[in-house]
Amino acid sequence: MQVQVAVIGGGACSGEVEALAEEVGAELARRGAVLVCGGLGGVMAGACRGAKRAGGTTVGILPGYQRAAANPWVDIAVPTGLGHGRNILVVASGDAVIALAGEHGTASEIHLARVLGRPVVACRAWEGVSDIAHAATPREAVARALALVKGGLDA
Amino acid sequence: MQVQVAVIGGGACSGEVEALAEEVGAELARRGAVLVCGGLGGVMAGACRGAKRAGGTTVGILPGYQRAAANPWVDIAVPTGLGHGRNILVVASGDAVIALAGEHGTASEIHLARVLGRPVVACRAWEGVSDIAHAATPREAVARALALVKGGLDA
Amino acid sequence: MQVQVAVIGGGACSGEVEALAEEVGAELARRGAVLVCGGLGGVMAGACRGAKRAGGTTVGILPGYQRAAANPWVDIAVPTGLGHGRNILVVASGDAVIALAGEHGTASEIHLARVLGRPVVACRAWEGVSDIAHAATPREAVARALALVKGGLDA
Amino acid sequence: MQVQVAVIGGGACSGEVEALAEEVGAELARRGAVLVCGGLGGVMAGACRGAKRAGGTTVGILPGYQRAAANPWVDIAVPTGLGHGRNILVVASGDAVIALAGEHGTASEIHLARVLGRPVVACRAWEGVSDIAHAATPREAVARALALVKGGLDA
Repeated sequence: MQVQVAVIGGGACSGEVEALAEEVGAELARRGAVLVCGGLGGVMAGACRGAKRAGGTTVGILPGYQRAAANPWVDIAVPTGLGHGRNILVVASGDAVIALAGEHGTASEIHLARVLGRPVVACRAWEGVSDIAHAATPREAVARALALVKGGLDA
Repeated sequence: MQVQVAVIGGGACSGEVEALAEEVGAELARRGAVLVCGGLGGVMAGACRGAKRAGGTTVGILPGYQRAAANPWVDIAVPTGLGHGRNILVVASGDAVIALAGEHGTASEIHLARVLGRPVVACRAWEGVSDIAHAATPREAVARALALVKGGLDA
Repeated sequence: MQVQVAVIGGGACSGEVEALAEEVGAELARRGAVLVCGGLGGVMAGACRGAKRAGGTTVGILPGYQRAAANPWVDIAVPTGLGHGRNILVVASGDAVIALAGEHGTASEIHLARVLGRPVVACRAWEGVSDIAHAATPREAVARALALVKGGLDA
Repeated sequence: MQVQVAVIGGGACSGEVEALAEEVGAELARRGAVLVCGGLGGVMAGACRGAKRAGGTTVGILPGYQRAAANPWVDIAVPTGLGHGRNILVVASGDAVIALAGEHGTASEIHLARVLGRPVVACRAWEGVSDIAHAATPREAVARALALVKGGLDA
């Protein structure tokens, strides 16, 4: 199995954050990792678009039952019907998690990731949150996330 | 329907925090609110014990499939089998949420509550978290939580 | 803890089936069991109404996030936001399950109950389904369900 | 997006059923569909093995939190931690569902698929279940499933 990395962040975001997301997605694809996300807009769409442009594979874990809700760059859709209850599945599906700026939904995912022992790397966001790593650039975020996926895929 | 208030906090906690939880549970019972929690130990057990001693009703939303895992002061058990995925159900079941000290699991619940629009009152904890209310005592926490349940039970 | 019995069946149903549901709910209340159901209409509303008229306690495990969706005879509401994913929680919350007539949703609950080892008693329905008990009247259904809850509440 | 087809059936099964599953997986791969399943053994392992041998893509939606529990032919793992609650996700992730022999878990998935409007094709099993299609061979099952995915991927 390829390494899977979850990318989380606001479903609506600034152009600046979306550009960061796109570069995170692209870098994950270049490094051979599968991108997992919530499958919708904002950071999720940016990351998927970046990954696809770089030839990667993308997975979207959706809150509703319809695949049609996924952004156009999702390869594999998992329509859950769980609403916000799908947040924990997004981070559970990452061997590591990269967190961009977001609001309460993203914060819930960071903490759920840590409950599950998934390493979290924040990129230019979440300064005050303990027990996670930080990175200044998408390239650094991806490098740190992949380095944290050690001791096998379920470490 | 009676007002339902979710009480969240560490599954293991200090005696001091457990005493706070017990007083929160007792005050909720005195004020006629149903207590909802995750049904296990620490803050959950303290709150349930306090509620039962004051004649209240308690609901435990459990991570596994077995009712036997509930603490002895749970009246109504909801075994979900959802693991940590049950966290969102705990806060969704509260018309308001009272948060005592805890770790990543409790933090995830605070943020999920805010995603769902449930008001959150923290009691002697979670100073740095935005978009929630704070209270210095159990009595004040319960009073603020009940005041925030306005405009009908689903406000 | 009191015994909890889940009552399942169509969310829309004939008056005849609703009358059966009401009598099942009333008999559960008379026998001191808590009624758990999906909290909506049809069989669920009938069973809750019967339980409340006989002085019982009712729990509604709802598919959405709003307590207001519960039928008027639900005491304790658990809004899950899980959609049809809440079906498994309904049967997991019963020490035994009583099944009235229904369609695919009810059938899914019967089979999920058996996956979890919960005993199922069908009342004037589900003739072709193996591995469940059958009863001709609400009183017999309740008696058989309570008899199957043996060896402790989690048997 | 490629068409996604869920394959369901017993987690333990006879060699005959496993051979059917392998041929279903292989035929799905030849026809360009992504295979989705519960990611474990029996029918799930057979189908994934067949799909991989024919060059296809496989998705395993797991009951626990650990990717390591997936069978060796799963490409994309979605560890849910939802236990049997993950059953609904398996069928929600298929534009159509192919059902081989199984027990209560498989039956629950067939009915949940129909609740969600996903077409179900049973292959040499589930004769008594209404509202589903039947096929005598893996090739016919795949052909019927793909034919039922009409009017767009979410039909």
